[in-house]
Amino acid sequence: MYEFQINKCLTFVYYKTTNMNEEFEKQFAELQKKVGKIEKGTKDQLTMVVFSGDLDKQIAAMIISTGAAAFDMKVKLFFTFWATAALRDPKKKVGGKNFLGKMFGMMLPKGARKLKLSKMHMMGMGSAMIRGLMKKKKVASLPEMFKTAGELGVEINVCEMSMDLMGFKPEELIDYPHMKICGVATFLADAAESKVQLFI
Amino acid sequence: MYEFQINKCLTFVYYKTTNMNEEFEKQFAELQKKVGKIEKGTKDQLTMVVFSGDLDKQIAAMIISTGAAAFDMKVKLFFTFWATAALRDPKKKVGGKNFLGKMFGMMLPKGARKLKLSKMHMMGMGSAMIRGLMKKKKVASLPEMFKTAGELGVEINVCEMSMDLMGFKPEELIDYPHMKICGVATFLADAAESKVQLFI
Amino acid sequence: MYEFQINKCLTFVYYKTTNMNEEFEKQFAELQKKVGKIEKGTKDQLTMVVFSGDLDKQIAAMIISTGAAAFDMKVKLFFTFWATAALRDPKKKVGGKNFLGKMFGMMLPKGARKLKLSKMHMMGMGSAMIRGLMKKKKVASLPEMFKTAGELGVEINVCEMSMDLMGFKPEELIDYPHMKICGVATFLADAAESKVQLFI
Repeated sequence: MYEFQINKCLTFVYYKTTNMNEEFEKQFAELQKKVGKIEKGTKDQLTMVVFSGDLDKQIAAMIISTGAAAFDMKVKLFFTFWATAALRDPKKKVGGKNFLGKMFGMMLPKGARKLKLSKMHMMGMGSAMIRGLMKKKKVASLPEMFKTAGELGVEINVCEMSMDLMGFKPEELIDYPHMKICGVATFLADAAESKVQLFI
Repeated sequence: MYEFQINKCLTFVYYKTTNMNEEFEKQFAELQKKVGKIEKGTKDQLTMVVFSGDLDKQIAAMIISTGAAAFDMKVKLFFTFWATAALRDPKKKVGGKNFLGKMFGMMLPKGARKLKLSKMHMMGMGSAMIRGLMKKKKVASLPEMFKTAGELGVEINVCEMSMDLMGFKPEELIDYPHMKICGVATFLADAAESKVQLFI
Repeated sequence: MYEFQINKCLTFVYYKTTNMNEEFEKQFAELQKKVGKIEKGTKDQLTMVVFSGDLDKQIAAMIISTGAAAFDMKVKLFFTFWATAALRDPKKKVGGKNFLGKMFGMMLPKGARKLKLSKMHMMGMGSAMIRGLMKKKKVASLPEMFKTAGELGVEINVCEMSMDLMGFKPEELIDYPHMKICGVATFLADAAESKVQLFI
């Protein structure tokens, strides 16, 4: 009789613990997988399309970016359309452009110091006023913000198609430590894994 | 004595396993519920307000949308304000509009082919230049992008209030396979469940 | 022999249950922590940068905000750059401004009733037309939307740097129940914890 009870006991224990383990481990592994997937999609990362080449919007983009990087967020910017002009280095000259490329090159601002306000540009007076004010109020200038962004590890991805359309060449862009030229797929992958996404 | 030990053993097993189960199942179910709720809020989905009717911003919106859809993301667009004008079909005519409706109808661009650049429109020269360049560089035109978007299942929700304010009628919109007219509540519900949200 | 088996049984039970518990509790606690962290980053909250001072974009921002708040989302707005002008109360006068402050004060619109459309302002005709249409169609006016937003608990954070740059003083802003002046860090913290983020 004892033997029977002991066996029953062992069977019971085996069943209870093993079954629980198996069924449970399966469910737990599933949940872990789910959480892992969600975690990958909510990284402490800010991904931003910088579309505008307006001085004011570029300043806003760089204040948000350097702020986020200072708070230890990973920051990935996708410069596209008019914004790419802000990345041109006025000291660099490139040849071999076709007619349209030359035309765009002349018409679009050559670098951050030449950008205009979206409102109240007023033949340059408004834009100069804002630049003067920022200096007076000890707010960093846009080129200084780019420098800080580089030091903080902010990544700048430049839209390949925009470069191609406007006839810009990689050689005429500013020296920036974390810059690469890529397509919209890179932006989408970055955006899908970040907590915060903006279009400026 | 053996009997006593066997009973103790069984009681112990029962207690350990059952209690663990109960308490644990409760906690586990709670966690599963939490994860489920979070999962619903981070769908592999891109929800975008398309507010601008500028050619360049519409192109940006459609490049991002078709790109995301090609990468198997669900894409839901909310066309509002000036963007609704891009959805007008120039070949469709509707009658019965009041004075303001007729005026808006005339002043706003009739469809994607009539949109202007946000910058450098230059009496149509800039916009024509971009359209020409895109063709030359084999970038799809905006109407082609809408076609692709339709094929990829991109949903276009058109803001009811904007249609009403501008006097647009559903009958004058382009034929698009996944279009419906709805309110801001639809956008909010879509945005709340998606990984990526943008305002263009 | 029985004794041996009983001891074996107890040891087995002890091992199975205790070990499982310990190892498992550790893993479970880790998962709970992870989920908690993710949960904090996906609050039912909408955080928006309101950058534009255009009438149409401000209307869009407030329709989205009051809509979200009506659906029980927490809404936090960060008014910056041109948008801060929309918060000025035309009935309030402040003295002690320097030359630039006075100039900005005069050039920028004094409150929501003075904002212009981003497109088709047409010397005020377009903006007046939209205002008239909204009234006719029983859409709330922008000042009414601010009132509703206040009642629904929408928080307005005003960018300190913008106020400083434009020489605006807190005393000249509208009376709003949930308004405070703060920096970009506040926006970043709010954005990082919300489900939906937009830049308008």
